[in-house]
Amino acid sequence: MQRALATLREANGKSNFAEWYQAVVREADLAETSPVRGSMIIKPWGYGIWEQIQRQLDGRIKETGHDNCYFPLFIPLSFIAKEAEHVEGFAKEMAVVTHHRLKKSGGNLIPDPEARLEEPLVVRPTSETIIGDAFSRWIKSHRDLPLLINQWANVVRWEMRPRLFLRTSEVLWQEGHTAHADGSEAMAEALSILELYREFAESVLAMPVIAGEKPANERFPGAVNTYSIEAMMQDGKALQAGTSHYLGTHFAEAQNIRFQNEAGELTPCHTTSWGVSTRLIGGVIMVHGDDDGLRAPPAIAPRQIVIVPMLRNKPEDAAVLGYCESLDRELVRQTALGDRLRVQVDRKDIKSADKRWNWVRRGAPIIIEIGPRDVASGQVTYMRRDRLRDGDRVVSATVPREKFMAEAAGVLTEIQVRLFSEAKTRLDGNIRSDIRSFDELSEYFSGAGEDEESVEFRGWVRLPWSRPSGAALDQIDERLKQLKLTIRNAPLGQSEAPLGKCIFTGQPAVQEILIARAY
Amino acid sequence: MQRALATLREANGKSNFAEWYQAVVREADLAETSPVRGSMIIKPWGYGIWEQIQRQLDGRIKETGHDNCYFPLFIPLSFIAKEAEHVEGFAKEMAVVTHHRLKKSGGNLIPDPEARLEEPLVVRPTSETIIGDAFSRWIKSHRDLPLLINQWANVVRWEMRPRLFLRTSEVLWQEGHTAHADGSEAMAEALSILELYREFAESVLAMPVIAGEKPANERFPGAVNTYSIEAMMQDGKALQAGTSHYLGTHFAEAQNIRFQNEAGELTPCHTTSWGVSTRLIGGVIMVHGDDDGLRAPPAIAPRQIVIVPMLRNKPEDAAVLGYCESLDRELVRQTALGDRLRVQVDRKDIKSADKRWNWVRRGAPIIIEIGPRDVASGQVTYMRRDRLRDGDRVVSATVPREKFMAEAAGVLTEIQVRLFSEAKTRLDGNIRSDIRSFDELSEYFSGAGEDEESVEFRGWVRLPWSRPSGAALDQIDERLKQLKLTIRNAPLGQSEAPLGKCIFTGQPAVQEILIARAY
Repeated sequence: MQRALATLREANGKSNFAEWYQAVVREADLAETSPVRGSMIIKPWGYGIWEQIQRQLDGRIKETGHDNCYFPLFIPLSFIAKEAEHVEGFAKEMAVVTHHRLKKSGGNLIPDPEARLEEPLVVRPTSETIIGDAFSRWIKSHRDLPLLINQWANVVRWEMRPRLFLRTSEVLWQEGHTAHADGSEAMAEALSILELYREFAESVLAMPVIAGEKPANERFPGAVNTYSIEAMMQDGKALQAGTSHYLGTHFAEAQNIRFQNEAGELTPCHTTSWGVSTRLIGGVIMVHGDDDGLRAPPAIAPRQIVIVPMLRNKPEDAAVLGYCESLDRELVRQTALGDRLRVQVDRKDIKSADKRWNWVRRGAPIIIEIGPRDVASGQVTYMRRDRLRDGDRVVSATVPREKFMAEAAGVLTEIQVRLFSEAKTRLDGNIRSDIRSFDELSEYFSGAGEDEESVEFRGWVRLPWSRPSGAALDQIDERLKQLKLTIRNAPLGQSEAPLGKCIFTGQPAVQEILIARAY
Repeated sequence: MQRALATLREANGKSNFAEWYQAVVREADLAETSPVRGSMIIKPWGYGIWEQIQRQLDGRIKETGHDNCYFPLFIPLSFIAKEAEHVEGFAKEMAVVTHHRLKKSGGNLIPDPEARLEEPLVVRPTSETIIGDAFSRWIKSHRDLPLLINQWANVVRWEMRPRLFLRTSEVLWQEGHTAHADGSEAMAEALSILELYREFAESVLAMPVIAGEKPANERFPGAVNTYSIEAMMQDGKALQAGTSHYLGTHFAEAQNIRFQNEAGELTPCHTTSWGVSTRLIGGVIMVHGDDDGLRAPPAIAPRQIVIVPMLRNKPEDAAVLGYCESLDRELVRQTALGDRLRVQVDRKDIKSADKRWNWVRRGAPIIIEIGPRDVASGQVTYMRRDRLRDGDRVVSATVPREKFMAEAAGVLTEIQVRLFSEAKTRLDGNIRSDIRSFDELSEYFSGAGEDEESVEFRGWVRLPWSRPSGAALDQIDERLKQLKLTIRNAPLGQSEAPLGKCIFTGQPAVQEILIARAY
């Protein structure tokens, strides 16, 4: 029972990462599919993680001078049509509202034909158009710049092959939108947000990432530059975990976002946009999960310490519960990782062993189990979720209460650091940089299985290239696609060392790029 | 300029409250209408107030054992149809999604006829149906009860006559949904949430309310009992500021939300639902606004203390700015009303006088203005927004810095209390309870003007009635409607004193009800 996930991961003698992922989402009680295709229900433990992400990311976004706003869910079709004129490669999978009333008709409810909207409304897939429209009214003078706005919202992009947290039709996210007087300031904004995302992913999600620039064919439609952070999952694939776009004056000119500069001239603004979503939770699962379920990094665990009273319907139960409650009261006065400890006594009316495994699967960082013996000796017996087992045996420690109290916050910090360094070792140790021809690349990945569900671990490859564009880039993209590979990004901060030749074009290379299979 | 609002309120020699309201929303920079009819853009100051409301209400909801979840935006039409079968008086003004893709057609973008949904999706007007569906899967045994869930979300109900914050098509709200093993526990939940709302409105929004039960004809469709908190606006009208519903087993039976009780029998749950929305911000404006704009209660002011440096492009500017920053640093270490002080130095590149009036109109509780003289003498010059004027003169105080630092948190608390007691005096002093016939009622309100936009202040009336139902109640409703009146609620905790006769039916009265014009 308690090792159901391990069994799953080892199913059929091959690693079935996709099934393991679904099992963790289910067993950790994070989310479930909903009756509406492509949408999900985020359950309390999953939503609790999202709340921790929101709170800490929101703090960072505000500290860097951005204000939160809220813009409408619906966007007039004409706004989208205007953007489509200006932007190549514009995705059209959107939910379209055409009626504003239902009516009864022959015992059924139908969209009322008399309530057809004159202009259909699109459920926002992202808010550039509606926010740009507001910016064009709000910005008049250089004194109004920079304008730094963020929004927490739900967005909808129709998904034919949904996967919980990773690809859903409705997504919860934050989207930042800024306008600046010149290009260098807007570019600095896009890059400083990228750095904010990197620092957040690494220090809060314990998820090491590589920040870099996307190749031209992977840019957000209409962007001058698109940057991303990329994380390595335990199957070796890459997950794009956040993006930041420098949009130049492209959107500003289309939407008439202009300001009077100090010389009195009307000038288009330079804009940016950037976002991360509930997809981050998918990343956390695939970076930190193990064969017993999720391991939630303490910085985002909705409960960092869970106390399970071992109750047996006996007179000593009251003392056990009282002891648990006094531990709770003492712990919540402490802080770790900059916040008050989040502690819960699990009073649910089910077996103690079931409670233990519920919290193991959810990944609560520290699980305390208190029985009459602990109460009598003034002890605390606990498990650390980051190193739950020694071989097959579950490991717990019993220490004097005072010692536990003195060390609890430190243990949480240690778990956070350990999860990060484990993932960092995996990332650093699995980027090959010795591949120097397309044939080598092809050979390396071709052994990794054809079936998406049973890919063997390969990691990433870091390669020099000549940064071709246009048709040459499309050709490379096509060749990589044959191997189910994509260019992830060109990491920032590359050394000036000579790079040799581009493995695609044979031309002198100008930078290195990361290549990987990806979500 | 600075008294633009007063001028508005006195327009045409009569009080035009609706125009004044719109002017406050605009001048306090809270929100604006969007290009999508019925939707609004919530600007940073307005959204900042909503964030304070969310944070503090969310804390209370969690402390009482509720977990946050997230359910899908879209609801299958079949779910709504099923509810419509079981529920009378079900509203049908909903946004309906019929297509999932756009396509180019003759230079235009249109909903792609090939991407018509087999089953239309409704944008959630509220989530009883989709959450009930999940409850029916999640609840199996009495051990799963009570199930206490809350969600923060956007909902859509088509509005033909929108008004910012008060009536918009898209609304931000929280909706609680709970399931219980028996009716008395579910009723206790509905009432304890009503009390939570009352306490929150009074202590956080400084908005006195009267909690009570709605008459049968004003119940949420399908509810057994609906409770509300009602607040008095400065024009004497009532605003329903929050509702809590005991739903009996009505929804549970329709949606198959059943549990096995301790005797092993399959039994329907008793459910509740409850919510408050961004409408609360409309209430805050109409309770606390004055002729200079909004007065934000310190507990929800996004910035409680704003520091305006009086800069003149002179060498002493640096010292002034440095002094302001040191005030900021010292203030943010303090707490008031349970939280760290929220302080901002306004560095915007505009005239100091414009900054002052920007913050006056937004209603920042304390506005500090620092010039070279304050720096030289180690003083603080400040205005209190709750008593800005003495007659027409704007009042400011200059005190030694140490004195200001010692008193600032106390002043914020005092402002919070004073705003509440001012509103409480207005509420208590404007509920007539001496009216004993329908004619008197009619006469009292008939002098108050026909035009909704120019109603004179009348306040509320508290009347004994016999609590008729069915056709008798409908008749009363109709008679009241002639006077533009509605029954607000039957206040909780009524005395046992004899009440005399019902003014509508002549029967012996069984309780008192509040009657008012309402938003």
